[in-house]
Amino acid sequence: MEKLNALLIGGGNIARILLEELCHMLGKVYYFDFRKTGLEAEYLESFEVPEDVDVVVECAGIEAVKQHALEVLKAGRDLYVISSGAFAYTEFLERLLRELENSESKIFVPSGAIGGLDIIRALGKRVSGVDLIMRKPPVSLGYKEFGSQQRVVFEGRVEEAIEKFPQNVNVAVTLLLAVRDSKRINIRVIADPSIERNIHELVVRSSAGDYRITHENRPSPNPRTSYLAALSLASCIEKRFERFVVGG
Amino acid sequence: MEKLNALLIGGGNIARILLEELCHMLGKVYYFDFRKTGLEAEYLESFEVPEDVDVVVECAGIEAVKQHALEVLKAGRDLYVISSGAFAYTEFLERLLRELENSESKIFVPSGAIGGLDIIRALGKRVSGVDLIMRKPPVSLGYKEFGSQQRVVFEGRVEEAIEKFPQNVNVAVTLLLAVRDSKRINIRVIADPSIERNIHELVVRSSAGDYRITHENRPSPNPRTSYLAALSLASCIEKRFERFVVGG
Repeated sequence: MEKLNALLIGGGNIARILLEELCHMLGKVYYFDFRKTGLEAEYLESFEVPEDVDVVVECAGIEAVKQHALEVLKAGRDLYVISSGAFAYTEFLERLLRELENSESKIFVPSGAIGGLDIIRALGKRVSGVDLIMRKPPVSLGYKEFGSQQRVVFEGRVEEAIEKFPQNVNVAVTLLLAVRDSKRINIRVIADPSIERNIHELVVRSSAGDYRITHENRPSPNPRTSYLAALSLASCIEKRFERFVVGG
Repeated sequence: MEKLNALLIGGGNIARILLEELCHMLGKVYYFDFRKTGLEAEYLESFEVPEDVDVVVECAGIEAVKQHALEVLKAGRDLYVISSGAFAYTEFLERLLRELENSESKIFVPSGAIGGLDIIRALGKRVSGVDLIMRKPPVSLGYKEFGSQQRVVFEGRVEEAIEKFPQNVNVAVTLLLAVRDSKRINIRVIADPSIERNIHELVVRSSAGDYRITHENRPSPNPRTSYLAALSLASCIEKRFERFVVGG
């Protein structure tokens, strides 16, 4: 069977999940991180795209995307990005898109910790409005004391939400990239003392129908990472070799 | 800009939507149907894949898939299938998958009239159960008189649902292809006098989280077709030329 040689930017929890999920299709794997993490792959002391690498996968953070994405495109490789928050930097995104025009590369931004982007993509310009409602336990929003009633603690534009809730920046930016128009997106953050884990809800209104997607993600073995986000990245890479492609 | 030459199998409502949605990227377009429908494309009297065609798109029905899919693969073209119900015929599917192994072609089955397949794909073997709950106005289920209370009129396996509700076969089979295991799928049909249009709900349980996707699709200008299904097919084809791919 065909094997994929990959360079992972990042050697942490998500990289580990990728190695496990994609073990059936990975050939040679390199990783680059600010320090050696003991990942079962060849550690690169400095960033470069080795000759035999087919694709580059970022699973390190926004800064890593900003630092290395252009180099990946210049090397003519496809890039998978989990830290889509990097694309909130408009100037950076525009430079990247210009570079893409002149290259053979593609950039893939998987659905990540939210789903239903197949619906949003299909609806395209027919989407009239999208609400992203993030329901969180008050303690995770920094409240030490909180009553027993849920309360809206933020309602506003995606740009503002990105600044105020950096822990959810990837979800917000991926949604923005899918909808393509921040004016059609409304973000609401609700502190809800009745829940123990985040519940993300997407409400999509359009001339072709109305949709609601509710996510109760469980954390991955390392609780700072959304498990679904990591699995979504793996699934996106898996598609490369599929000859019978379902969904999308 | 690059243009896509396409052969559409089917010259009806969905073909019309495709021509409209994809007008920016379509070059030469042929269509084949049992009769000429006046579609703005070149009509083929008999089925063949013209030399200059890049992809073949089925938007005609299950029988068309069964009749022409193998020929498309033999011609080395990619095939987009909206009538996924054809893949309920296991023997046919297996023959197709064998043929795919030896070809350069791919088959794409878009999400269609349901969404959230990006979540199901990502979860993969972690999915423990999926409920597809189809809520319908009693009249659309053939009831002439019905009380004011909703009632479950079917609960069972996907194979049985396919036989009993042929009008929803594509949704059921696409879900089955995504989940890959019919034992993990439970179908429920509810006659609900309080609604005027179908509401499809997907409930996904997994070790990485729980998800619920609710669809209130509106019909397309021709009410027999799900608009979302047609738009999903168009969006799937659009991905071919995208260099910055969001979702999936």
